[in-house]
Amino acid sequence: MAIQYPNGKVYTPTKKTNIPKKKDYSFSNRGRTLEDEINDANEYYLAHEIAVIYKKPIPIQVVKVDYPSRSSAVIKEAYYRTPSTTDFNGVYKGKYIDFEAKETENKTSFPLKNVHLHQVEHMGKVVKQLGISFLLVRFSSMDRYFYLSYEHLKLFWDRMLSGGRKSITLEEFEEYGIEINPKYAPRVNYLKIVNDLYV
Amino acid sequence: MAIQYPNGKVYTPTKKTNIPKKKDYSFSNRGRTLEDEINDANEYYLAHEIAVIYKKPIPIQVVKVDYPSRSSAVIKEAYYRTPSTTDFNGVYKGKYIDFEAKETENKTSFPLKNVHLHQVEHMGKVVKQLGISFLLVRFSSMDRYFYLSYEHLKLFWDRMLSGGRKSITLEEFEEYGIEINPKYAPRVNYLKIVNDLYV
Repeated sequence: MAIQYPNGKVYTPTKKTNIPKKKDYSFSNRGRTLEDEINDANEYYLAHEIAVIYKKPIPIQVVKVDYPSRSSAVIKEAYYRTPSTTDFNGVYKGKYIDFEAKETENKTSFPLKNVHLHQVEHMGKVVKQLGISFLLVRFSSMDRYFYLSYEHLKLFWDRMLSGGRKSITLEEFEEYGIEINPKYAPRVNYLKIVNDLYV
Repeated sequence: MAIQYPNGKVYTPTKKTNIPKKKDYSFSNRGRTLEDEINDANEYYLAHEIAVIYKKPIPIQVVKVDYPSRSSAVIKEAYYRTPSTTDFNGVYKGKYIDFEAKETENKTSFPLKNVHLHQVEHMGKVVKQLGISFLLVRFSSMDRYFYLSYEHLKLFWDRMLSGGRKSITLEEFEEYGIEINPKYAPRVNYLKIVNDLYV
């Protein structure tokens, strides 16, 4: 399942990801969600002029709006809609970045039901347009983070479609993903991996 | 105010934009908003694998949600928030595209109050990251469309900040913008201009 990246590199996982690590609580996520952490990273990138990446607003279907005064509008009835794309997108060194971030409490595998078919399809279209697309997964109970390229995600997705397992195991993330070791600023520095693979 | 584009081209406006045109009603917008028309173009680009560009959802601050049943959620109180970025973004031939679309009923100029400071700032950050950013303006009463690069928009914005006029005249759009002549599919083919300037 080796994927060759556009810059000609083939990612070779380092063996150290398999060594059980002593937890460093000074870099703890302190109960923040993965989305919070990605937003933190994006604010850091924006402030340091490294990248311009935002979380898209949640799509909401507004049905009823009250206008108690000329200047304000209060939405009184609305519904969440299923997102047709991924959560985050933006630009880094001229390159289009588009990804989904998911966390699981599961300790041994990431259930693929956390990702929707239309999201995988969207990521495929992005890659076809020469954009960079990937999945970020946090195994929350172990505070471990992985970058998984769209190309690898697609292989596991197709395995599921052809009757195989409905999840990606932690061992598979260790082998085919790239682990992001939490640092200080930003804590989840996912663009370092994009930079290593594509720039 | 000549802007040199990354591919070395300098846009030279053709004189024909100054000739009053006979209106071709077969390509009429039939009361659709500019946003509708851009969405149509984006659907066309997506279906033909030309580009992956979406309108971002409107940001809404949800305050109160009811759960009448396990599977459904009804938002009972929410508020519109001011967008901190532009309306549309995506990827075209590997390039990051980020733009704002605005229409005016005004016949002689486009009031700059239709654009917000944080949007202009966002567009500047995008261009600094080597993304492509621009403003699409429709003079609705005349059914005329213009592409104005961020770089030109910024010049007019700065003119306003230094005490100059608070709008961009139609003549300035004819001189510094690029007119998009409505066609059949897609009607507002703005990527043709991006392609001419940047690809």
